[in-house]
Amino acid sequence: MKFITGIREKETVEISGLPAEDCEGKRVRVNGAVHTIRDMGDVAFVILRKREGLLQCVFEEGLTKCSFSDLKEAQTIEAEGIIRVEKRAPGGVELLLETVKILSEPAERLPFAVAKWKLPTTLETSLDYRAVSLRNIRERAKFRIQEGVVRGFRDFLYSQGFTEIHTPKIGAKSAEGGANLFRLEYFHRPAVLQQSPQFYKQMMVGVFDRVFETAPVFRAEKHSTRRHLNEYTSLDFEMGYIDGFEDIMGMETGYLQYMTGLLQRDYAKELKILGVTLPDVEKIPAVRFDVAKQLVSEKYGRQIRSPYDLEPEEEALAGRYFQEEYGADFVFITHYPSKKRPFYAMEDPEDPAYTLSFDLLFRGMEITTGGQRIHDYHRLLEKMQKRGVQTEGMEAYLAAFRYGMPPHGGLGIGLERLTMKLTGGDNVRETTLFPRDLSRLEP
Amino acid sequence: MKFITGIREKETVEISGLPAEDCEGKRVRVNGAVHTIRDMGDVAFVILRKREGLLQCVFEEGLTKCSFSDLKEAQTIEAEGIIRVEKRAPGGVELLLETVKILSEPAERLPFAVAKWKLPTTLETSLDYRAVSLRNIRERAKFRIQEGVVRGFRDFLYSQGFTEIHTPKIGAKSAEGGANLFRLEYFHRPAVLQQSPQFYKQMMVGVFDRVFETAPVFRAEKHSTRRHLNEYTSLDFEMGYIDGFEDIMGMETGYLQYMTGLLQRDYAKELKILGVTLPDVEKIPAVRFDVAKQLVSEKYGRQIRSPYDLEPEEEALAGRYFQEEYGADFVFITHYPSKKRPFYAMEDPEDPAYTLSFDLLFRGMEITTGGQRIHDYHRLLEKMQKRGVQTEGMEAYLAAFRYGMPPHGGLGIGLERLTMKLTGGDNVRETTLFPRDLSRLEP
Repeated sequence: MKFITGIREKETVEISGLPAEDCEGKRVRVNGAVHTIRDMGDVAFVILRKREGLLQCVFEEGLTKCSFSDLKEAQTIEAEGIIRVEKRAPGGVELLLETVKILSEPAERLPFAVAKWKLPTTLETSLDYRAVSLRNIRERAKFRIQEGVVRGFRDFLYSQGFTEIHTPKIGAKSAEGGANLFRLEYFHRPAVLQQSPQFYKQMMVGVFDRVFETAPVFRAEKHSTRRHLNEYTSLDFEMGYIDGFEDIMGMETGYLQYMTGLLQRDYAKELKILGVTLPDVEKIPAVRFDVAKQLVSEKYGRQIRSPYDLEPEEEALAGRYFQEEYGADFVFITHYPSKKRPFYAMEDPEDPAYTLSFDLLFRGMEITTGGQRIHDYHRLLEKMQKRGVQTEGMEAYLAAFRYGMPPHGGLGIGLERLTMKLTGGDNVRETTLFPRDLSRLEP
Repeated sequence: MKFITGIREKETVEISGLPAEDCEGKRVRVNGAVHTIRDMGDVAFVILRKREGLLQCVFEEGLTKCSFSDLKEAQTIEAEGIIRVEKRAPGGVELLLETVKILSEPAERLPFAVAKWKLPTTLETSLDYRAVSLRNIRERAKFRIQEGVVRGFRDFLYSQGFTEIHTPKIGAKSAEGGANLFRLEYFHRPAVLQQSPQFYKQMMVGVFDRVFETAPVFRAEKHSTRRHLNEYTSLDFEMGYIDGFEDIMGMETGYLQYMTGLLQRDYAKELKILGVTLPDVEKIPAVRFDVAKQLVSEKYGRQIRSPYDLEPEEEALAGRYFQEEYGADFVFITHYPSKKRPFYAMEDPEDPAYTLSFDLLFRGMEITTGGQRIHDYHRLLEKMQKRGVQTEGMEAYLAAFRYGMPPHGGLGIGLERLTMKLTGGDNVRETTLFPRDLSRLEP
């Protein structure tokens, strides 16, 4: 009988296994994709793209045992040779090629030059050819940083006693209700795709005290803007036994501190490739909604048109205001008007026209909505009745409250937006692997 | 201006902050839900449910400054008192109550006794009342273990150089095609929910070499069995530069070794609550599909009815065979017949009627399907033509191959099934927070 005993050790090395200090003259085997070839006459540089970066390989007629004409871009190869310290090469080393084994061949030349520093395509072309355009080192780096953003979220919350949950995306009803729902037929029953895990995560606070989920949400909004997606990844948490909604903002601030630290430590290469300066998250100003509107109106001479909404332009100006006045990249806008928040939002006991809720703006764009929720069954029912929210189909949600729920609150963070603002992008599609919008359903 | 500077430190303590060795006589504040109350006459035990377990609190008339009649099950409270070492209490300590502050009240008595060791309901009732039934300590523990299963997957793969990706769940086409698709309208265009991230993760191998995703998948299968769900969480990975499909099995074995180690270390409490003995994953036998069928047929006298399928009963018997003959909880069944594998499966060069693919059985049930994929553009096109698979709508997928892809392969693991088999369940709904099946769309 044959047995599988664990990872099969590879004879090939990765870039992190080739530190310039101690591998001069070492014979190694590597694999990778031919990113680009620069023919210099006597020698040629064959730049290999590996998951950790680029490795400069040197083809020398006579020394390298293959024909130069056999090599071309977008092949994948396995090569053996000798490492040489070379300051001008990426990573400070290069590989003098001895043998090259071609693992796979492309069928055609690349449609555009992915090896260029800046991808020479429009965003639309980049999205159409995602499997190719992301081979560009800078484009790829954005999604490595996105990994750090999610990874930091989970690792930080694990350390704070949160439990990870997986809630269903197909349901009979959705948390926010309304028109922006994708509808489908589920074995002859009408169903919807969830806009948020809101109800589920609240129900699970009664079980685990603190829960989080990192999963897709679906919004059939007919927006066509640089900041809207119809499917995105939501980083959600919900926590019980809070003393107030400041606990939620404190937890988010703690996450941002942890996450930026993680990026600094484990994703420094990608930050450098993109020229990213991480935001300062030591302290984040928190200002009331009505005060923020007033401050922006006064400083920038913008008339307040709607007292209940923070319009995108006002968000941008609020971001600018706190940048200018406090050097802050982030600002919490608190106490949103009740009429603009869902029924489960906890009203401010001092003025029920406002809620104990907040948005977090990052460089002038909303990346989080959160707040304290109503936890008392009777108050919740009352609010639903006042709002005309049907209890039908909400029995399981209401049962959580009927049988006792701790004071709690939580938030949702849009992953793609946060990544966009971190990496200095200005269209959320740039930081979405395969975006879904009004016109885009493929690839 | 007010600033948020990070996590707000709590004055309350968690159970892990109350080790029996060094907290005798300590005054502490705790919060939690009243799990159950045992009135013993002179004193009463008020058992608090906290996220880390149960804490025995002692109500003593005169000493405790509240009325006993004010306390009831399913309240949430904050209490202060003195810690006493008490061997008979869970965790070895108890809290002598001095003050009790009620944070929230239930509106009704619990519909069933969640505090019983075994939940006294049917599975259907438990699923209808998920927000309540999971307050049972054993039910809750299953999902803590599920967390460890996912967490181990990610952490292990991060350590192996994988990048986490997030792929869209709404698409124009799906990887496996066929009839088992949920269909919806996407802004006046027909769309489907993805059955698997297969195409996307393959495309991303050309970018990141190694990728993984942990996300929901949707299958409109009309099965009504103990092991099928219509929406489940799939743990997927895909890796490039493999020498053969044994690399995939090796990586999965490495994951199982890491994950069981993590459970042992960080989820020991939950393993104990459920009486779980972790499987032996030091080495996993691998046997060809045709040989497995033969062995099972010979040993258990079961006639081979279909040479192309491993029927559920045969899976169970194969599990039994390798348990009896090798003491193995897991077995890899390799070289599935080509006609039963999707078009992208790599055929065995030694016999193209079979593929370089595998399933992993855990205690007689399939929990993984994986294998090597075709990476050559022309071979892939040829296979699609032979199978009658339309290239329309597959342009982006095919582009990845047209412009060069390394040899690669991967797998998908059903999270709920793996959790079920680990925790000794016999219905996959037991280890799904909110299952979706033919009849269940709520809660």
